[in-house]
Amino acid sequence: MKFDFTYFNPTKIYFGKTALENLSSELANYGDTVLLVYGKGSVKKSGLYDKMIKILNEAGKKIVELAGIKSNPSYKQMMEGARLVRENHADLILAVGGGSVIDCAKAISISAYCKGDPWQRYWIDYEEVDNEIVPVGAVLTMAGTGSEMNGGSVITNEEKMLKNGRVYPPNVYPKFSILNPEYTYTVPKYQMASGIFDTFSHLLEQYFSGTDDNTTDYVIEGVLRSLTHSARAALKNPEDYEARSNIMWCATIGLNTITGLSKEQDWEVHMIEHQLGAYTDCAHGAGLAAISTAYYKYIYKFGIDKFVRFAKNVWDVNTDTLSKEEAAMAGIEKLSNFIRELGLPSSLRELGATEEMLPLIAKSTIQGGGYKQMDENDILTVLKNCY
Amino acid sequence: MKFDFTYFNPTKIYFGKTALENLSSELANYGDTVLLVYGKGSVKKSGLYDKMIKILNEAGKKIVELAGIKSNPSYKQMMEGARLVRENHADLILAVGGGSVIDCAKAISISAYCKGDPWQRYWIDYEEVDNEIVPVGAVLTMAGTGSEMNGGSVITNEEKMLKNGRVYPPNVYPKFSILNPEYTYTVPKYQMASGIFDTFSHLLEQYFSGTDDNTTDYVIEGVLRSLTHSARAALKNPEDYEARSNIMWCATIGLNTITGLSKEQDWEVHMIEHQLGAYTDCAHGAGLAAISTAYYKYIYKFGIDKFVRFAKNVWDVNTDTLSKEEAAMAGIEKLSNFIRELGLPSSLRELGATEEMLPLIAKSTIQGGGYKQMDENDILTVLKNCY
Repeated sequence: MKFDFTYFNPTKIYFGKTALENLSSELANYGDTVLLVYGKGSVKKSGLYDKMIKILNEAGKKIVELAGIKSNPSYKQMMEGARLVRENHADLILAVGGGSVIDCAKAISISAYCKGDPWQRYWIDYEEVDNEIVPVGAVLTMAGTGSEMNGGSVITNEEKMLKNGRVYPPNVYPKFSILNPEYTYTVPKYQMASGIFDTFSHLLEQYFSGTDDNTTDYVIEGVLRSLTHSARAALKNPEDYEARSNIMWCATIGLNTITGLSKEQDWEVHMIEHQLGAYTDCAHGAGLAAISTAYYKYIYKFGIDKFVRFAKNVWDVNTDTLSKEEAAMAGIEKLSNFIRELGLPSSLRELGATEEMLPLIAKSTIQGGGYKQMDENDILTVLKNCY
Repeated sequence: MKFDFTYFNPTKIYFGKTALENLSSELANYGDTVLLVYGKGSVKKSGLYDKMIKILNEAGKKIVELAGIKSNPSYKQMMEGARLVRENHADLILAVGGGSVIDCAKAISISAYCKGDPWQRYWIDYEEVDNEIVPVGAVLTMAGTGSEMNGGSVITNEEKMLKNGRVYPPNVYPKFSILNPEYTYTVPKYQMASGIFDTFSHLLEQYFSGTDDNTTDYVIEGVLRSLTHSARAALKNPEDYEARSNIMWCATIGLNTITGLSKEQDWEVHMIEHQLGAYTDCAHGAGLAAISTAYYKYIYKFGIDKFVRFAKNVWDVNTDTLSKEEAAMAGIEKLSNFIRELGLPSSLRELGATEEMLPLIAKSTIQGGGYKQMDENDILTVLKNCY
């Protein structure tokens, strides 16, 4: 662990079949008015919405609702939520849904009392938040983004065709998150797979950087092994509780900063996907899946030892008899097979991207990278390789 | 992850070579009077004491000192600290040292304003803390116990020959802990090895339980692999920064509850060692090392599949050609070899235990266990097997 770090994660996690029983005691810590944020109605179908309303009513809360949050939450919806918070003096923003809903809740939380234009200040200029933050709580219904235990919030500005993410300090993290793996049973298989690969990608983007010896890399390898194992079990039987609970917890620790400590990190696959998402509105994890194989085939030679280690420690490839080149490629091949097992796309075409979009995506992608610093040309090549 | 859990760990960690630079800003969060708790003088030799005094003076703090905390902190010392807190109205207890010093600081924190006898209420009857808790901060100089990021506190009542531990809720955890791996360079090799095995044992005692599929087990395997790797590097070169930083972080996450989530856990090796420690005052990790091989040889058949997995995933034993029995024993043999590599004892005799002590230790040990519930006879057999 070569680089100094600060680790502080004050989100309280209630995990398991009885997790929702803790909501009442948490609600008692906040004032009377709750902004309930949710998506396009799956929480109504599943019955969770009714349970939430009952608990909120029993706690004597005044409920204000913001429904219909999209899978790529929009700046417009976020601003609508900010208005509702201000006008109703909401004391708590309660997100019920997946990462998009929680991302949106966090964005509302910092924007409601923002002086000036939040988009410009917080998602373009990355200014520090200097205004009142409205506390957020979460009830998670989909595993993948890790938004339930971090400060990340990705928002799409549809007018400007930009999907920008940023990471806020611990005072913006959800104060509490309720994680019942059973709530994810109703997530359609494709969405489940997309969420699994989102987590997988978070772990890879933290793993593939650095040449130092770092405990965090060993932890990531463990989480990747568990996630692969449980993904296969859940594909066979989506109501395998142990599998779904492991997937949920892998997603949470996959991006609660503990799997990124003292790491330089990469994140270029995410940067590319954000722009792919802005142009195609594809499911985030599916976009990541379509890009990943091409990306890692493009950059592996710049960090080949880590890719050999990946093949060996994550996929049990016997690397003893292979050249570094062969071993590294064997690991990427395993990753590529895993994407196919998940039923996720291996090309941008399958996600509705057109050839004309590629230069636009490449141009608008934030440039970064881990073992290789990526420029516009590099990105365009990767996009063409997976088109 | 079969069992429901709550995860909440609000300790703020500053890690690395520059970690101490954050002390001033942390001190600003507390009142004027600081109880500085430390051990038998190694912090004076290393120069850390002078640095602390300088920072505290610059922050305008009134300093009260409690020095000489022993490696098994005593109830008497703890009560002396509690008196100092009360008489000086200390606003912060700042522990500078290893786990013993931090354990003692936490014990002082809950005992200072305890109504009644703290020993009886908090370490015998395990009552909930209903009095004011004085906040604790820590500057860690030795890796092993994990006390820097949890609510654990083990205290030895010398009059009663009892070493009792308990785990307090998150409001007793250190508010902040400063972890600079360089501070551990001056720890003598035997103490370093003892700390490493303490961590190793924490991980094993959480790992060896349950038959469910649990992400936590994969995380533990990763941490055990990292710890083994870094222990060997640090034995060769104690000033290998990466190795010492990994050891320090393994120790922290090895007992900050994240490696115990949704696990039944064992802890019987610790229970036995606590009584061994009360009778011999041996270094905690050395005591654990002396007991572990005999203990796991005694219980492995009750959880054999996990021991096979341990051999394969932690020690890279090729288990394909072995019977379960052989594979499990091969893993325990690897553990036993690792203890020897660390230069730690494999028998109680080496730690000063006498044959007469064994029944007394067995009788006074709290009975528990993971794959096997241990009674007094079981414990005595284990003790004889490693005498």
